This record gives sequence, structure tokens and C-alpha cells, in this order.
Amino acid sequence: MVEHDSQTLDTIFHALGDATRRAMLGDLAVGDRTVGELAEPFAMSLAAASKHIKVLEAAGLIRRDVRGRTHVCSLEPMPLMSADQWLGVYRRFWTGRLDTLEILLRADGAAPPPPKPPLPGTKGE
Amino acid sequence: MVEHDSQTLDTIFHALGDATRRAMLGDLAVGDRTVGELAEPFAMSLAAASKHIKVLEAAGLIRRDVRGRTHVCSLEPMPLMSADQWLGVYRRFWTGRLDTLEILLRADGAAPPPPKPPLPGTKGE
Repeated sequence: MVEHDSQTLDTIFHALGDATRRAMLGDLAVGDRTVGELAEPFAMSLAAASKHIKVLEAAGLIRRDVRGRTHVCSLEPMPLMSADQWLGVYRRFWTGRLDTLEILLRADGAAPPPPKPPLPGTKGE
Repeated sequence: MVEHDSQTLDTIFHALGDATRRAMLGDLAVGDRTVGELAEPFAMSLAAASKHIKVLEAAGLIRRDVRGRTHVCSLEPMPLMSADQWLGVYRRFWTGRLDTLEILLRADGAAPPPPKPPLPGTKGE
């Protein structure tokens, strides 16, 4: 189990609070990218893109591997797991709501969705 | 399925990027709180706590119900579901890593954990 250090979670969630940085993580989920490749899709200077990359690095979300003059970035997913675990505590709220919606839809004569196997840890209270 | 509007996710993750605001959400997960009750555990002025509450409100994470002179706050969990869904795309990374760790532990003669049923949507690529 990963420890949820408050300051670490602050940094992780702060890093995720920007569409450019989330898009960069999306690119890195496909494969490693040089800094130039990461910056390319965005209408911004390389300096501005570098700032975003540094925020992601500070949050531990990417690793930078210096190969001569090329900096290759790769995804470090474990901080995302910490964020996911923090959110997991709240999952019972929407699971409950969606179950209620399902019951209402069934009562209303809508086609029932296919049966789902129970998910451990998502039953809530 | 909730739409992942970029600006909305920015606001949600920004709101989560602060330990005080996360603790306030934790309190609201237990039950409704007045603004005073929400502010009470923190060593800060009511004005400072109110700012945090406003950030949570702007992200749609809490609802404020004005009852005479009392403002009662309650948790609105659905934006957390949007954040959770965004993170869901990356879940295969740590699921894969933890599976590998499990295999290594088993090979090392450690006691095997109890078998887990398959989780739909977490199989990865």
C-alpha cells in the first residue's frame, strides 16, 4: 500500500490540474517521448512546455533519462495510483447512485443492463 | 458516462491539490457540515477556510444550502467520479506492476495471496 503523504498528494493533484500536463501523460502512456516530441502537439514555446514537464517531474509522474543531448521522458504511474487510492474512499458514493439509477430504470421498464460480477472493495456501506 | 470536460477536470484536480480541502471533503463524506464546523479543525481564520470552501464549490464538489443564517455544506461526489474515470485509463499500469510483484513473491516462496476474481475494465491493453 502506498502512503498518502499530504504534500505528495498536493503535488500530484496540482500536476493533474492542467489539460496540457494531462495530455502529456496521455502521450507517455503510449510510449516514451523526447522533450521535443512531448512539446510538439501544443501551441506553446519549448520553454513553456518544459515548465509543464518540470511540474510533472516534481510530482514524480515522469522520469527523464538523459541520453547525450536528448532527454527521453517516460511515465511513472505509481503517483497516479496514490491519487486513485485517495479517490477510492469516495467510490461508494457514485456506485450507490448508479445502482439506484439502475433500479429506477428497471422499474420504469427499460431494458435491464447485463449482470455484473461483484467488484471487491466497491460495495461501500 | 460523465463527460471529461478539460476545464472541469482542471478545476476538480486543482481543488483536490490541497490537504485542507481534501480533509474538508473527508468530513463531508461522514455527513453534512455548517461552514463553521468545516472550518473548525483547521488552524486558520474563518475567512481562509471560506476561501477553500469556495474553491470546492467552484469545482462542484460541495453544495451549500442556505438555511436562514446557517450555511450547510454537503458533498457532491460526481466530480470525483470524473477524476476517477480519468485515472481509470492509467490503472492498467499499476495493476500490471502489482501482478508482476505477486508473481515474483510467489516464485520467491512467499505465501500466495487469496485468488482474486477478474475485474472488468482493468485488464489493460
